[in-house]
Amino acid sequence: MTAGGYLKGRIRREDIITAAATAYAEAGYQGSSLREIAKRVGISHAGLLYHFPTKEALLAAVLERRDAEDAEREQLAAPPGLAVLRHFVALAEHNVRHPGIVDLYTRLAAEAVAADHPAHEYFERHYRIARENVLRSFQALAANGELRPGVDPHAAALTFIALMDGLQVQWLTTPDEVDLVGSLRFYLSTLLTVPLD
Amino acid sequence: MTAGGYLKGRIRREDIITAAATAYAEAGYQGSSLREIAKRVGISHAGLLYHFPTKEALLAAVLERRDAEDAEREQLAAPPGLAVLRHFVALAEHNVRHPGIVDLYTRLAAEAVAADHPAHEYFERHYRIARENVLRSFQALAANGELRPGVDPHAAALTFIALMDGLQVQWLTTPDEVDLVGSLRFYLSTLLTVPLD
Repeated sequence: MTAGGYLKGRIRREDIITAAATAYAEAGYQGSSLREIAKRVGISHAGLLYHFPTKEALLAAVLERRDAEDAEREQLAAPPGLAVLRHFVALAEHNVRHPGIVDLYTRLAAEAVAADHPAHEYFERHYRIARENVLRSFQALAANGELRPGVDPHAAALTFIALMDGLQVQWLTTPDEVDLVGSLRFYLSTLLTVPLD
Repeated sequence: MTAGGYLKGRIRREDIITAAATAYAEAGYQGSSLREIAKRVGISHAGLLYHFPTKEALLAAVLERRDAEDAEREQLAAPPGLAVLRHFVALAEHNVRHPGIVDLYTRLAAEAVAADHPAHEYFERHYRIARENVLRSFQALAANGELRPGVDPHAAALTFIALMDGLQVQWLTTPDEVDLVGSLRFYLSTLLTVPLD
């Protein structure tokens, strides 16, 4: 492949991933076909299969891109402590401006609770990493006396991640009645002895 | 229709609703067809259409039955206060023993964020009623000094309902790592100045 051909291949690949993310958000992963996604991009079914030979391969690419974007934007790998919690709140602020991302994530997470769903392992890992990430921060805060006495860092981490998910589905359903970012801040204020920022 | 025929009709109707709930939990509402649900019950497509002329009518019946069962079991209409919160915890205890119900609810809630989904209005109403119900209880607790000073009853109500939803999807994905009932109790303990029971 020439350099120009390579670049063209990259662009096409990104277009397919974008179209797939939109299709999943609209009809769910299980309700979307490769044929339909190819049509959205304006390429043939065979052309799409050249880049993504299976439905699962395309789903994996959509999830990988989403994670890469989140990580780059929010520096979720900051040192444990308040900074990590602030990054999660910043992620929520970003999500409020991009409901399509939240829609995609919410639908896929719900579909993927089935053990045989191709994104099941992704979400198992996603929850484990998110919980551990937040746990280390709550532990660091506890060590500094910045977590309210009696608050268990494990329970705080698990419920914080759960709250983000639950707020998203409630916000998508009744957007005018749910302050997504304010609710996260409220929860953190009940756990911490110091202001978030 | 004779009395026997009427009874037979009722039983058939309940069977169809049960089969639909199972189908939705397995493949989502959008991934389930009336034809397939009829096959599960062992009746003809036309036989099913006699009871439920549209896909939407069957979905409404599934949701109505679920609410009626919840309300009957957990007396969610108890007077505002600790009793209502205890009933929500009891509902979570029931759900842990019936993951199929949680699966169905989680999937439908995620699908129904789309404004044109036939269950969208149901979930709008569901969230409003749940929030108001819990709000009145937090307000009653605040009046008795049983809510921690500085905790806003509105934010507490909204996040409590969100937490229930978020815990359910995380529990379905990684059941061995999520204590659904314990996490709810943990959250209430951070909000209240009195023990839950």
